Amino acid sequence: MISLMSKCFLLILAMTGECMAKSIVAYGAQSKADTISQMTIERREVTPSDISIDIMYCGICHSDIHQVNNDWGRAIYPIVPGHEIIGEVTNIGNQVTKFKVGDIVGVGVMVGSCGNCGSCTDNLEQYCEKGFISTYSSEDPQHGGVTYGGYSENIVVDEKFVLHVPTNLALNAVAPLLCAGITTYSPLRNWKVKPGDTVGIIGLGGLGHMGVKFAKAMGANVVMITSSTNKAEDAKSLGADAVIISKNPEDMKNNANKFDILLNTVPVSHDLNPYLSLLKRDGTMILVGAIEPFKSGELNGVKLIVGRKSLAGSLIGGLQETQEMLDFCGENNILPDVEMITASEINNAYKRMLNNDVKYRFVIDFTKK
Amino acid sequence: MISLMSKCFLLILAMTGECMAKSIVAYGAQSKADTISQMTIERREVTPSDISIDIMYCGICHSDIHQVNNDWGRAIYPIVPGHEIIGEVTNIGNQVTKFKVGDIVGVGVMVGSCGNCGSCTDNLEQYCEKGFISTYSSEDPQHGGVTYGGYSENIVVDEKFVLHVPTNLALNAVAPLLCAGITTYSPLRNWKVKPGDTVGIIGLGGLGHMGVKFAKAMGANVVMITSSTNKAEDAKSLGADAVIISKNPEDMKNNANKFDILLNTVPVSHDLNPYLSLLKRDGTMILVGAIEPFKSGELNGVKLIVGRKSLAGSLIGGLQETQEMLDFCGENNILPDVEMITASEINNAYKRMLNNDVKYRFVIDFTKK
Repeated sequence: MISLMSKCFLLILAMTGECMAKSIVAYGAQSKADTISQMTIERREVTPSDISIDIMYCGICHSDIHQVNNDWGRAIYPIVPGHEIIGEVTNIGNQVTKFKVGDIVGVGVMVGSCGNCGSCTDNLEQYCEKGFISTYSSEDPQHGGVTYGGYSENIVVDEKFVLHVPTNLALNAVAPLLCAGITTYSPLRNWKVKPGDTVGIIGLGGLGHMGVKFAKAMGANVVMITSSTNKAEDAKSLGADAVIISKNPEDMKNNANKFDILLNTVPVSHDLNPYLSLLKRDGTMILVGAIEPFKSGELNGVKLIVGRKSLAGSLIGGLQETQEMLDFCGENNILPDVEMITASEINNAYKRMLNNDVKYRFVIDFTKK
Repeated sequence: MISLMSKCFLLILAMTGECMAKSIVAYGAQSKADTISQMTIERREVTPSDISIDIMYCGICHSDIHQVNNDWGRAIYPIVPGHEIIGEVTNIGNQVTKFKVGDIVGVGVMVGSCGNCGSCTDNLEQYCEKGFISTYSSEDPQHGGVTYGGYSENIVVDEKFVLHVPTNLALNAVAPLLCAGITTYSPLRNWKVKPGDTVGIIGLGGLGHMGVKFAKAMGANVVMITSSTNKAEDAKSLGADAVIISKNPEDMKNNANKFDILLNTVPVSHDLNPYLSLLKRDGTMILVGAIEPFKSGELNGVKLIVGRKSLAGSLIGGLQETQEMLDFCGENNILPDVEMITASEINNAYKRMLNNDVKYRFVIDFTKK
């Protein structure tokens, strides 16, 4: 009798298995300062508006390292990073309208937002007044638990936060567009970069190299502003029309008052004042890389007052604009420069990133075991 | 024979006297840290495009005190301050077209600029790429010598830098519009303040009280943001719809993300970060009072990035916009609140200004001896 009950229970489990949470392989850190290792996590069952995605590629963003190390004090362990995700749709909820099984799709930095505030209704979910739900290490009030990111076999995401990927692009390189791409595309669009503008991209890394490509595709005269003389040739090969070495005072002085827009991708505190001098009257420098308070340089208000200049900030981009960016990349054949790795190489990739040794984004290939 | 020659010489002098430089009474400082005292200066002869103005009123700007004390290291002694000037035209050059003898006119912070650069041709002479000629303590490459300002009986200025004054306004109060007025009007116009916007004016002094009046006249919901609880009633009587006490953390927290525009008139270094939190998404804080580097607070880039906010600066306004501002004041009957003094009371006025004891601008009355 007991044996029969056990068999029935197993049968019921097997019948309902497709609709229940499932265990998958992921790669993350169990605690602060831990290395990335394989672990098992659960993905929720697909709700009516959800899409289940088998992950093919996931980019490694510099913020992944900060989060794993809890540099911002917001990490929830265990942490599975990854918010530059490309994969194939393997299951959809019964109310999904935008996607079908077999579609190649992308997921970026956000997997949820309130949907009702002024920012959400303006398609700027990244500025959701209640705070958006991050793709990883974020409490998820909509589905419970904590979010786990794209260093994993599979992810389940509400279709609103899933993007279509242009079919003409090499998929292994598309992933970094979901963070590095939209973070640089959005401000260039918001500040209306147009042919004839002179745009400076400060810093040549994952963000900076996308800034060069986008600004060039928008018709601007593009100048790379870097502290490293050995990056000059690389910048030109990416499309920069000229290079300024920021450590050379003469170079900086000769380029004063020349820039309509400066996109500042430097990810650490630095003195902003020398860069403000490069702006034309009514020019704007936009911070996109700085994720900590500026401590090394005091802001000189006179630098803004004389010339009516602006210092602004910009955070990733909304879903609608992210789709626009992906389509723009498809139309203009724009892709990040990537170095492919397997999941077992993540820790080494982190080390190399901390040494500034990557051109310009690592992408984990989950299609190779 | 010698006597006859001397008589002829004196006769020639007398005949040509009207066209030559003339000595006038002025009030200034002979050296750093000196008090203001009466002195004699020379005004140039009227060139074809010049206007000679007998000064009736001159406002006292906080920057006058800084210049007299050489706080910015740019003072040229002797120094005759004053760049909020109202007077009557008493002579005009033979190519002057905009003014006639007897007109009531104004002169502000500038008396010259290159006229050819992009800023000058855009009617933004305040951003002249070669540097504008200040009304006082500035070398004058066009006419030689050093400029002397409006603490004087008379001034000679190229007609391009002279403004028409609406006849319906009380002239004794018009003077501060030429600096405090245009400094606050110009950014509110440039950042397109419109009915329904919520505009915060930070600091209630000469600039701040004009900011309240202009923003209100432009239809905005105006909030005074001040560190002084005892200024709350004054702010409301000037037209502010509400007051925030910046030293009260609860008050600041309750008003987070509420402002489209913040006009920051605080004239000394201060921590900008708490104010940036008051801005809505896409909001802008404009610095107009800060004339020294910010030393007391580091800028937190995240405050700009989250919410795509901007920090900008603005310097006085161009001639065309200054005329527009004066006409706007005439149409809307807007005037600064002033306290009239005589020239002998300037030193005492400086002391009171340093104690923040003026509502809101001292104006020297040169019609009273």
